[in-house]
Amino acid sequence: MFDSVQKHAALIARDGLKVRRLIGRCHKLLSERGEAAGVSLARETLALYRELDRKEQARFFLALATEFSPDPQKVLAAAQAYAQDGSAEHLAQLNKLAEPPRQELLRRLNRAPGGMAAIVKMRERLLQLLKEYPELAAVDWDFHHLLSSWFNPGFLQIIRVDWRTPAYLLEQIIAHEAVHEIQGWNDLHRRLEADRRCFAFFHPALPDEPLIFVEVALVEAMSEKVAPLLAVDAPSGDPRRATTAVFYSISNCQPGLRGVSLGNFLIKQVVDLLSAEFPRLKRFCTLSPIPGFVGWLTPLLKEPDAIRRPKLAQAAQAAAQVLGADPARLAADPATAFERLEPLKEVLMQLCATYLIGAKDGEDPTPDPVARFHLNNGARLERLNWAADTSKKGLRQSLGMMVNYVYEPGAIERNHEQFVHGKIIAAKQVRALALTS
Amino acid sequence: MFDSVQKHAALIARDGLKVRRLIGRCHKLLSERGEAAGVSLARETLALYRELDRKEQARFFLALATEFSPDPQKVLAAAQAYAQDGSAEHLAQLNKLAEPPRQELLRRLNRAPGGMAAIVKMRERLLQLLKEYPELAAVDWDFHHLLSSWFNPGFLQIIRVDWRTPAYLLEQIIAHEAVHEIQGWNDLHRRLEADRRCFAFFHPALPDEPLIFVEVALVEAMSEKVAPLLAVDAPSGDPRRATTAVFYSISNCQPGLRGVSLGNFLIKQVVDLLSAEFPRLKRFCTLSPIPGFVGWLTPLLKEPDAIRRPKLAQAAQAAAQVLGADPARLAADPATAFERLEPLKEVLMQLCATYLIGAKDGEDPTPDPVARFHLNNGARLERLNWAADTSKKGLRQSLGMMVNYVYEPGAIERNHEQFVHGKIIAAKQVRALALTS
Amino acid sequence: MFDSVQKHAALIARDGLKVRRLIGRCHKLLSERGEAAGVSLARETLALYRELDRKEQARFFLALATEFSPDPQKVLAAAQAYAQDGSAEHLAQLNKLAEPPRQELLRRLNRAPGGMAAIVKMRERLLQLLKEYPELAAVDWDFHHLLSSWFNPGFLQIIRVDWRTPAYLLEQIIAHEAVHEIQGWNDLHRRLEADRRCFAFFHPALPDEPLIFVEVALVEAMSEKVAPLLAVDAPSGDPRRATTAVFYSISNCQPGLRGVSLGNFLIKQVVDLLSAEFPRLKRFCTLSPIPGFVGWLTPLLKEPDAIRRPKLAQAAQAAAQVLGADPARLAADPATAFERLEPLKEVLMQLCATYLIGAKDGEDPTPDPVARFHLNNGARLERLNWAADTSKKGLRQSLGMMVNYVYEPGAIERNHEQFVHGKIIAAKQVRALALTS
Amino acid sequence: MFDSVQKHAALIARDGLKVRRLIGRCHKLLSERGEAAGVSLARETLALYRELDRKEQARFFLALATEFSPDPQKVLAAAQAYAQDGSAEHLAQLNKLAEPPRQELLRRLNRAPGGMAAIVKMRERLLQLLKEYPELAAVDWDFHHLLSSWFNPGFLQIIRVDWRTPAYLLEQIIAHEAVHEIQGWNDLHRRLEADRRCFAFFHPALPDEPLIFVEVALVEAMSEKVAPLLAVDAPSGDPRRATTAVFYSISNCQPGLRGVSLGNFLIKQVVDLLSAEFPRLKRFCTLSPIPGFVGWLTPLLKEPDAIRRPKLAQAAQAAAQVLGADPARLAADPATAFERLEPLKEVLMQLCATYLIGAKDGEDPTPDPVARFHLNNGARLERLNWAADTSKKGLRQSLGMMVNYVYEPGAIERNHEQFVHGKIIAAKQVRALALTS
Repeated sequence: MFDSVQKHAALIARDGLKVRRLIGRCHKLLSERGEAAGVSLARETLALYRELDRKEQARFFLALATEFSPDPQKVLAAAQAYAQDGSAEHLAQLNKLAEPPRQELLRRLNRAPGGMAAIVKMRERLLQLLKEYPELAAVDWDFHHLLSSWFNPGFLQIIRVDWRTPAYLLEQIIAHEAVHEIQGWNDLHRRLEADRRCFAFFHPALPDEPLIFVEVALVEAMSEKVAPLLAVDAPSGDPRRATTAVFYSISNCQPGLRGVSLGNFLIKQVVDLLSAEFPRLKRFCTLSPIPGFVGWLTPLLKEPDAIRRPKLAQAAQAAAQVLGADPARLAADPATAFERLEPLKEVLMQLCATYLIGAKDGEDPTPDPVARFHLNNGARLERLNWAADTSKKGLRQSLGMMVNYVYEPGAIERNHEQFVHGKIIAAKQVRALALTS
Repeated sequence: MFDSVQKHAALIARDGLKVRRLIGRCHKLLSERGEAAGVSLARETLALYRELDRKEQARFFLALATEFSPDPQKVLAAAQAYAQDGSAEHLAQLNKLAEPPRQELLRRLNRAPGGMAAIVKMRERLLQLLKEYPELAAVDWDFHHLLSSWFNPGFLQIIRVDWRTPAYLLEQIIAHEAVHEIQGWNDLHRRLEADRRCFAFFHPALPDEPLIFVEVALVEAMSEKVAPLLAVDAPSGDPRRATTAVFYSISNCQPGLRGVSLGNFLIKQVVDLLSAEFPRLKRFCTLSPIPGFVGWLTPLLKEPDAIRRPKLAQAAQAAAQVLGADPARLAADPATAFERLEPLKEVLMQLCATYLIGAKDGEDPTPDPVARFHLNNGARLERLNWAADTSKKGLRQSLGMMVNYVYEPGAIERNHEQFVHGKIIAAKQVRALALTS
Repeated sequence: MFDSVQKHAALIARDGLKVRRLIGRCHKLLSERGEAAGVSLARETLALYRELDRKEQARFFLALATEFSPDPQKVLAAAQAYAQDGSAEHLAQLNKLAEPPRQELLRRLNRAPGGMAAIVKMRERLLQLLKEYPELAAVDWDFHHLLSSWFNPGFLQIIRVDWRTPAYLLEQIIAHEAVHEIQGWNDLHRRLEADRRCFAFFHPALPDEPLIFVEVALVEAMSEKVAPLLAVDAPSGDPRRATTAVFYSISNCQPGLRGVSLGNFLIKQVVDLLSAEFPRLKRFCTLSPIPGFVGWLTPLLKEPDAIRRPKLAQAAQAAAQVLGADPARLAADPATAFERLEPLKEVLMQLCATYLIGAKDGEDPTPDPVARFHLNNGARLERLNWAADTSKKGLRQSLGMMVNYVYEPGAIERNHEQFVHGKIIAAKQVRALALTS
Repeated sequence: MFDSVQKHAALIARDGLKVRRLIGRCHKLLSERGEAAGVSLARETLALYRELDRKEQARFFLALATEFSPDPQKVLAAAQAYAQDGSAEHLAQLNKLAEPPRQELLRRLNRAPGGMAAIVKMRERLLQLLKEYPELAAVDWDFHHLLSSWFNPGFLQIIRVDWRTPAYLLEQIIAHEAVHEIQGWNDLHRRLEADRRCFAFFHPALPDEPLIFVEVALVEAMSEKVAPLLAVDAPSGDPRRATTAVFYSISNCQPGLRGVSLGNFLIKQVVDLLSAEFPRLKRFCTLSPIPGFVGWLTPLLKEPDAIRRPKLAQAAQAAAQVLGADPARLAADPATAFERLEPLKEVLMQLCATYLIGAKDGEDPTPDPVARFHLNNGARLERLNWAADTSKKGLRQSLGMMVNYVYEPGAIERNHEQFVHGKIIAAKQVRALALTS
């Protein structure tokens, strides 16, 4: 790393004025003059950043890594002093020296009008650069640390999105829906009618941009297919008669907030809001995609013989005979896909349950990101649904299967804790499907 | 400190259930189950805190100091690892271990509805306990650190307070005015008329409580007396003709935010707002009290002979002959006080300038807190005003003298920097008064 | 009247330019050019009116009476045509000719910004002038007719006034309270606490001025004394436990809206709102003053022998022996008044019931304006309360007595109808007190 | 008419309960009990109306005509009394008797929640029935009279419609645009960008429904073609550089408000608002359709020989040779239409100018409704534009021609007055085109 510091310094120096001037301004912003300048200097600094192209931005972040890190020797000395007497004074000193100065830099940039939006955009870029420049991980740690603190649930406002919502916000809902694409304004309108709900989190410093939103259907039974929930022409039901709230889509709008816990809190606040409005609701569940199943299945189909667990190997062989080596190809023709899949229903549901619960030899349980999200939130894997999403995307991801996860308020903490300790919370009938031997 | 940990642990253990239960809840909140519990556990934890009496609160804070501090040995090991290779990974590790767990605890408490208000109140109590329990300084460091980040100027909303403001907010303005007490609603109303302005900072998570506010008079010359600014019956002037904005009062409303920089930003934002609304305004100044002058002067009057600087000693002697040893006694009879003070006008203004600029032997310059605030913000000490505040409080604090500080936008950064390096920025005529020899 | 037209025309002509110019502008506003001018001409016309002094205003209104009335001959011809065939066409023609052109003038003035407020102020002045100039009655008829239509309850907004209300509105509540004077902001604050309610009507075109407001106490029994309701230091009760809503004050804020029915609708809307918020409320009543009792009693006390009804005469004699000829004098010393009144309790309550229900020979029932208001609204006279208002005003008006009127939703229409046909709706125990023979 | 009263009474009596019950409720609402019932009776009455089918509604309106008209004999007596002495008292009496009781009925219906919306809908139906039942004219006169008073410009709120406007309002803009149809949300979005403006009038009692709206383009020259203004992909211009505001569409949303003057005031308020926001704007004009031209031209083409004015006859003959007897047929193929029209450009522009200014023998000038609207508002007919609207609708209405009308603030009143007296205000070059001989 010390070497890399040298290397980057050279890199940054070489490339002209713009990055250098920005870095200079950052140092000034951290100085005494910066304190007195109020917001004007922060505004100027952000303006300089906005002029950078992608390459220059990379250099800027590298400079944050090298020039705005704590001084290792000073931190060491402070840690020694603290270890010696454990005093409040030495602890305060240590805290001051161990915190990377770029954190204070970000706090000062945040003072500018629009500062928060700019910092979130910065992180979006930083995350893109991270693969290329793994040495930026420490910088990202600071961004993540501060953003987690600033986007504390205590500061977020939950807003119901409906047909009274301003168009420029609705437009963003259409743009950011990541699970079941919204096909224009009519589709959106249907999703905002009386028997549907959409809630979004907003932050007071980003009032014009939703952070994350969830779409809910208020229905009379736990949904096993998604098409009826999305049908634009379906008549609107009476939400007061609903017994079940189905969370059928949750989408993040801010890539710069990756890793900042929002969805978990959003779901729980929506459960509270809906419970208060509709006392008849007694079940809160999702109808969720299984985005990783086909990706997990494909290598198994290629070499079923290499699988050690006999039942799993047998199932893979059976599937491979029908599907060939590339199951995703089915998606090309959704109209006929289910005719071909139907004979495999049992075996594919077993494989999918195995993917979600058991997993292949030597691999962690539940590589599925959606499963990890809900199970980690304390939900229970309740039911696996055959032919639940017959769209191309549904076929490509999971051969049309979907999952219901159930949020049972009284069980959430316990479920989460068990999940953290490696246990998948699943209903008996799902567990029974998994090919554990 | 390690000893004191032992002592406190005993103390906390001894006193029954309440504090113990609260601490237990805090540990749970920091655990995995706490993460999944969403806001409900945070709400319960705060409810337990609210039941504590003052003594129990002290014990709770002591527990925060002992049980929620970083582990010195682990921090040391991390600091060593980081010092060895300076890697991003080791830095991230160090950051994680060096940060006291009570910071994360506060962040999780903040998730509860009303969490922010509760944390600010907690710190108010913590500050009161600090004298008695200096070992709480490290805990306070964490509160201050988080509150500074959360009350970042980028999150604050500046609101004009006027006669259209809801009564429950105006009531707080009356209650918190700390410089020139507001004598009821008529007095307040006059301070909100067309030729006056009042601006306050609010935080979105504390929407019902002003954080700090400033009162401004829009006039045609830099004020040298405060009475005309406060006269309830004075006719309202035309603000569009004003050339000078006089900041005649600035008051904090939240003792729990002590040390969080707010006033500096508030003044500068108000300067911007007023400049935009009234293009004819060309001077931004204060009319400020000198709260520490009499306190500084009294010992000098008692023993003028002990003063080494001859001119200063001579002035002190002259003043002592008229004022006796306790100059604050004058305040008992404001009606006649100025008759008695008048002959001393020159000598007292010299002494006061000395207090503000020069100071007595071996002491730092400018012990006056108001002077430190404005000079540190980048203002210039412009003029010393005789008989400027003829109230009892004015006599008691500064024998009726007041100061104008001037905020000149172009000079603020430079002034602040010089002040930080020990130089007082003052107009020539004030400097000339100081008895530096 | 034709004579008076001549006279006024001379009067208006004589007095110079201002009124003439205004009248000229009014004619223009009614012309075709006025139609095209949009709001600008209306604005100018109102500006001219605002420059008039009281005398000139009188002349302006007289000009409205003479120059902006319908043409009697044309109306007669139209009435004859309509009487002949009853056709829609002739009716429309009649309507057009019979409506005084000053109505259209007012409608066009209303187009100006602030037009509505100006018209309401105009009528306030007009009402003051009516005694001196009874020939303005027809002009007032038009103002009243239009204002009744524009202040239709369908356009009014009911607003809860509480401590979150802007100060400039609360200030008006203090100023306009006409029943139990509000003694400053502390008194007001108490009247807005959790166990009290205040509701006001607003009109969208007068958003900054309440039209009328009512104050309600939420208590556990029908109040018989007003002091506990007004006590500033009384602890606030829990409104959810209240069974009775006592309307203890209702005040108009706009003298220019005299005769426009507002109070009736306000009370009924408040009953609906409170019923919805507090399902435990089962009684809606008032605690009302009896402003006309002493004025009615005084002549009886002077000449009790002239009274024909023997029981009434006897009671008057008994009262006269103690009170002398001027019972209002008691008010000079409220402290001792009730000692003197106590022995007369029975006889005074009989006299008061007689005033409210029976009344003296040859006089209409219920000359009391407050009684007429509530009975006409459909309320029932429920109870007469001794020593209910011990203030000077209470003694001066009614020797300290007050009345409860009860609004029973199911009985309102019937009660109102009976009242309109001359019957007083009163509880048995009040009726029993009245000296009808 | 008296006969028709008999007839209708029979009709209404015959048809069952519903109308009879509603009429009964209306009588009650006008009675004393109705006054006391507050808004509840009005609500019930409206509910009964809502249950009627179209035929029953007609009977209801007929009952309003017969049972809620003034009594001709009483009105006659009152008119005679007023004609005799011209007294205020007799005038008031006359006013009371001449006003049809259905006006007070409507005022009382308006008290109900949603009353105003219901009355506007009632009139929409009434207007549809008017052709079939001309005897309802008097009833419509009352609706129009009251609605004109209630929708007085002083009560209307002008709202800027933009991309921040709630979707349910934007949806109504799309639905009601009557001039240049809005092709979905993208089209709408373009019309709300920075170089466009849309303003609507709202009434406080109908907060969710726009009454009328206007669309404006801010451009650098008076537009002669509409396509560039409507192009969805056109880049947005800088409105601060615009010199000309082109009102390219104005649409009513409430058929029930026909004849209530709204557009006139809306245009003038928008001129004021835009002038204040953009000081560089120096011209306010329209780009307007000529909806009646082809309808006027068609009979002329059929029998050009019957035209007395020789130049006009000659032009009609020339046009007939190319266009045949049905010029609207061109619209079937917009792609080739202009090729065929081009040779006729001069003669068609002459004919169109004649239609707008001169008109055919014995007919009023300007039968065009759009021309009448703008000229009556005080605008000037400024320019006739060839091939300005190449859509099917444009061809069908006016063979693709459009007009610019100019609103010159200083000339509006004078222009309007001249128009009222029969004079068309037109620019010289348009006037020169008209075939007046």
